[in-house]
Amino acid sequence: MEKAIVVFQPDNVITEVELGTSLLEAAKKAGIKIESLCGGKGTCGKCKLIVDSGAENLDGPTYEELSAIKNGKFSQKLLDSGYRFACSVKVKNNKKFFSDSSIGGHVILTVPAESRLGAQKILVEGFEKRVRADPLVNKYFVEMPKPSLAKATPDLERATSTLKGLGLGDLEIIHDALKKLPDSLRTRDWKSTFVIWDDREIISIEPGDTVKRKFGLAVDIGTTTIVGYLVDLNNGKLIGIGSILNPQISLGEDVITRITYCIQNAKGLDKINKVIVDGLNEVIEEACSKAKVKKDEIYEVTVVGNTAMHHLFLKLNPKFLALSPFTPVLKRGLDIKACNLGIKVNPGANVHILPVIAGFVGADTVGVLLSTNIYKEPELTLATDIGTNGEIMLGNKDAMEVCSAAAGPAFEGAHLKQGMRGEPGAIEKISIDANTLDVNYGTIDDLPPRGICGSGIVDAIAEMFLAGVLTRTGNINADIKNQRIRRTKNVLEFVLAWADETAKGVGDLAITQGDVREIQLAKAAIYAGAKIMMKRRHAEEKDIERVYLAGAFGNYIDKVNAKIIGLYPDVPGDKVKSVGNAAGMGAKHALISRGKREEAEIIAKRTNYLELTIAPQFKDEFIAAMYLPHSKIERFPSLRKTCEKLPSWSELLKN
Amino acid sequence: MEKAIVVFQPDNVITEVELGTSLLEAAKKAGIKIESLCGGKGTCGKCKLIVDSGAENLDGPTYEELSAIKNGKFSQKLLDSGYRFACSVKVKNNKKFFSDSSIGGHVILTVPAESRLGAQKILVEGFEKRVRADPLVNKYFVEMPKPSLAKATPDLERATSTLKGLGLGDLEIIHDALKKLPDSLRTRDWKSTFVIWDDREIISIEPGDTVKRKFGLAVDIGTTTIVGYLVDLNNGKLIGIGSILNPQISLGEDVITRITYCIQNAKGLDKINKVIVDGLNEVIEEACSKAKVKKDEIYEVTVVGNTAMHHLFLKLNPKFLALSPFTPVLKRGLDIKACNLGIKVNPGANVHILPVIAGFVGADTVGVLLSTNIYKEPELTLATDIGTNGEIMLGNKDAMEVCSAAAGPAFEGAHLKQGMRGEPGAIEKISIDANTLDVNYGTIDDLPPRGICGSGIVDAIAEMFLAGVLTRTGNINADIKNQRIRRTKNVLEFVLAWADETAKGVGDLAITQGDVREIQLAKAAIYAGAKIMMKRRHAEEKDIERVYLAGAFGNYIDKVNAKIIGLYPDVPGDKVKSVGNAAGMGAKHALISRGKREEAEIIAKRTNYLELTIAPQFKDEFIAAMYLPHSKIERFPSLRKTCEKLPSWSELLKN
Repeated sequence: MEKAIVVFQPDNVITEVELGTSLLEAAKKAGIKIESLCGGKGTCGKCKLIVDSGAENLDGPTYEELSAIKNGKFSQKLLDSGYRFACSVKVKNNKKFFSDSSIGGHVILTVPAESRLGAQKILVEGFEKRVRADPLVNKYFVEMPKPSLAKATPDLERATSTLKGLGLGDLEIIHDALKKLPDSLRTRDWKSTFVIWDDREIISIEPGDTVKRKFGLAVDIGTTTIVGYLVDLNNGKLIGIGSILNPQISLGEDVITRITYCIQNAKGLDKINKVIVDGLNEVIEEACSKAKVKKDEIYEVTVVGNTAMHHLFLKLNPKFLALSPFTPVLKRGLDIKACNLGIKVNPGANVHILPVIAGFVGADTVGVLLSTNIYKEPELTLATDIGTNGEIMLGNKDAMEVCSAAAGPAFEGAHLKQGMRGEPGAIEKISIDANTLDVNYGTIDDLPPRGICGSGIVDAIAEMFLAGVLTRTGNINADIKNQRIRRTKNVLEFVLAWADETAKGVGDLAITQGDVREIQLAKAAIYAGAKIMMKRRHAEEKDIERVYLAGAFGNYIDKVNAKIIGLYPDVPGDKVKSVGNAAGMGAKHALISRGKREEAEIIAKRTNYLELTIAPQFKDEFIAAMYLPHSKIERFPSLRKTCEKLPSWSELLKN
Repeated sequence: MEKAIVVFQPDNVITEVELGTSLLEAAKKAGIKIESLCGGKGTCGKCKLIVDSGAENLDGPTYEELSAIKNGKFSQKLLDSGYRFACSVKVKNNKKFFSDSSIGGHVILTVPAESRLGAQKILVEGFEKRVRADPLVNKYFVEMPKPSLAKATPDLERATSTLKGLGLGDLEIIHDALKKLPDSLRTRDWKSTFVIWDDREIISIEPGDTVKRKFGLAVDIGTTTIVGYLVDLNNGKLIGIGSILNPQISLGEDVITRITYCIQNAKGLDKINKVIVDGLNEVIEEACSKAKVKKDEIYEVTVVGNTAMHHLFLKLNPKFLALSPFTPVLKRGLDIKACNLGIKVNPGANVHILPVIAGFVGADTVGVLLSTNIYKEPELTLATDIGTNGEIMLGNKDAMEVCSAAAGPAFEGAHLKQGMRGEPGAIEKISIDANTLDVNYGTIDDLPPRGICGSGIVDAIAEMFLAGVLTRTGNINADIKNQRIRRTKNVLEFVLAWADETAKGVGDLAITQGDVREIQLAKAAIYAGAKIMMKRRHAEEKDIERVYLAGAFGNYIDKVNAKIIGLYPDVPGDKVKSVGNAAGMGAKHALISRGKREEAEIIAKRTNYLELTIAPQFKDEFIAAMYLPHSKIERFPSLRKTCEKLPSWSELLKN
């Protein structure tokens, strides 16, 4: 079935519909309530929407609209300025953008206030994007008639018939709620609160009126950390956070070692899954205790994470993620009851795991796209989320593409001799005097240095390059006579801090030649991915309207230095913006908004995954990007003057 | 919403539809496939059905039919003989039978062979009723394209897109099946069998072609026994049986003591539930081992049982079943995954628990109605299912009513001094010489008597009455001088067998005055229930066209003697029929047929429950029925002559 996407403004809600669907039906699907006095017959003219773009994907003036113009309910002027009757206009076109993707046509509409049915709901703030609180979980307080011998209707049927009076028809009930039903109804004399998921399933029954207590949890399971955001579902507000280091680290530092652990150990998957579930339960405990919320009051959980974490959390065999062609077990989002996953919240709570895009592009990337809205705004945006792996996104409302760069966890300090995570004592800021090579640094919490973290490494490489310590091929220049440049066990290194400055036991803190190579490999992979996607899109640096840096690394790095090392294309600094934990924010949006959850599925389905390793230009782009900032300095015009006057500028990379 | 019922013959499938539904839509809902070349426009004339009864509940001749008569595609003669165009005729009427019920109008149709789409399915035998095998579980063997780097579609999406080619769209998958997916697909090189429930949910994936191995289990959880019928879902045939005494007996002999156990013991419900689940798992083990079926090859389970067993099996608090107004937790049927109930079959198997009717009328009664078809046939039928409790049903296609008689387990031998279940050594047949009072008896397996079971008790009471040992009020006649009539510890009794005839340790085996009272109370409750229902229906004995006796007791009793004690109204013997374990057969029908399962819901919803204790006539009817056979002998004309010549006939009951 051919499909197209429809975006409703200013709600910023997107939906995917089959061709031939009317705009009124599309609005209904997107949860946008529109006046339709005549019941969709095209006679009342109440359902007018304004077409912002994509008019070519809609029917021309319809019989109903032309009739309404004749009888004065509508005018040619309004029609010309984009007003349409939602009930009579159907979506028709479906042009593809990439030949190897399924991205089709789109329509963007504004819903004028006068066409809206009923009152506006509460708005809540996300990452500068407004998301209307419209959770899947609702509570209803009702008082029921008591049974008698003459009318001994069973408890459930008694309840559903009362709820039907509130417009809730055909309700199912989960087994756990059924077990609570008889006592819950009688505790407060047949006055009870029903917790209903997705307007169709009773997930809990509580004695008395508990409507005001309704909470949810958005979870970001990273390779390194697990973060849980506790949210009041009545207004969408964040009320508590819990986080821990991902306890799987004890079973494997990175994704591949954890997958290997699962393959090589009988019950390995069970064990690694239990560790992650126990960890999440600790996060829940922490968030609840801070916010004085009972675990039983959490009625829904949303989860994002990279595809490997996604599989381990769901106890899905991750083996084939590690073997070419790196196929995930599934793509779509999933709903599983908390009690079946061992998550200690209300046992009837639904756990919604957001969809993944590919083996190396997970639900966390879907979360970034969901919370930043890149995929439905006109500005062509390049985004990166660099954590234990690096994902690169490029696109806008017309088309969205994503790839995974095998950048590894170098920017988290892994594989570096004295690298560390962004914890107290990590060097996070560095500047180097080009004349004396004296180093100025700042550490987290101003403690004596224990190591160097991601933002510090970016600064170190950029500053070493500008000071001439590093050549454009990334060699430490051994010709410079300075005590900071030295060989230890035949390895060249540059000393950032002397033993008397560093924390006890650390000794001299240095960046080695090997460390520089790790960073070169990582940054080259990310830049190459971005550049190949730009070429596929026929986009040059000037066409990139925004660069979004997601994740903790993207939050703390110096954007100028990141460009100097060539981490991303040469785009003016005012277009580059850190967007924080956009993945976690996406999980929160999917938690509080039914529409955003639907959007996540659309994002996963319509975002084109590019497998970099089989892209024909990849090898060349990757090697060219190993240089600082790049072998072709014309790609970085803003850095050209600075770079070309560096003494070792003419050096060439030895393969 | 007003509804009506539509029955399709000869399939014998019933469905409930909203008024205004076309017969073609009704057929679709009932799973009956009908030709409709023109797509329901009323022009092809392929969808003709024959109206057998209920024509007044349908539209008159439609525009489409009249047009077809004009153009020769149809004829007035066919129309007059009941042929109608299914697509153009709508259901319209909805008349109620009982003012206190929701039973509405009905239509009975025959589907001629020429109107059927595609081939007939296999027919299997139930209780003389043919049920078409059309289970909810289906298996599909498919071969899928392997993934590649260029097309690394995730496993699930790869599978669902292949299955879509077989017409299976929008499939969900349960978590357990998802866990099996990646390895199952790769074990036989991407050739796998998908097990799909209800055309919408993947519940298991097996490597290679396993289509021929597809089994289900129908379970009858009685107060006393648990029976499991293992069925081949490919053809609906019974292939094995497992059964045990309900192990809950150790926690309470009858329903009320078990409920009391739950109320009085912390974790009592958990414990009693575990006992029943463990018991069912033993039954499964036995049936599977006999039939050489793996437990994992059982993909669906259906369950019937009285409302108390139903609640205990589902771990629902049974407390309120024992307190007026005896309200069950729910009425509707339920679907729960086997793994969530602890039932050891395929973990993805659905366990369908059939609906109940009321606190004392359970899913077992629904099973009886389902397998006997009483509710959709024209003959007015009285049915009883006497086990640990007694349920009485009266009705036909027009209306169905049911009540529960507080008959207790007297007919299972409980509360009798030397009563026992129908086990080896139980006296099951008795005749008494009216002159000498000599007793002839037969025992199960011809062993020396250990006690007396239900059918033996009915014989004993009837024969004692006819021999003058019992008066019409049930007194043992102490005036008769015979060594068999004696007082032991001041209690009158009649000796059936002397100590030297009985099993070791039993001693003399006698029926006491107290035993006779127990039977009088039980039979009076059942007769009174039947009679009150007949009066509500304005039906007399001559109007009863059939009497069905369900259950083991109904199977073994002497029908003449049952009438002599006044167990059921005076209906000619040729109309009385034992129908075996009709409840269990109902579970089997619901297991093998999607249509029958839908029918069970309709039965539960439309069968009127009559609460005997608040029926105004109950007390009088009950007391009158304490007599043998009844105080008003005119109610038993066929016994009148025999009874009136009995010496003590004029005796009156002392209250």
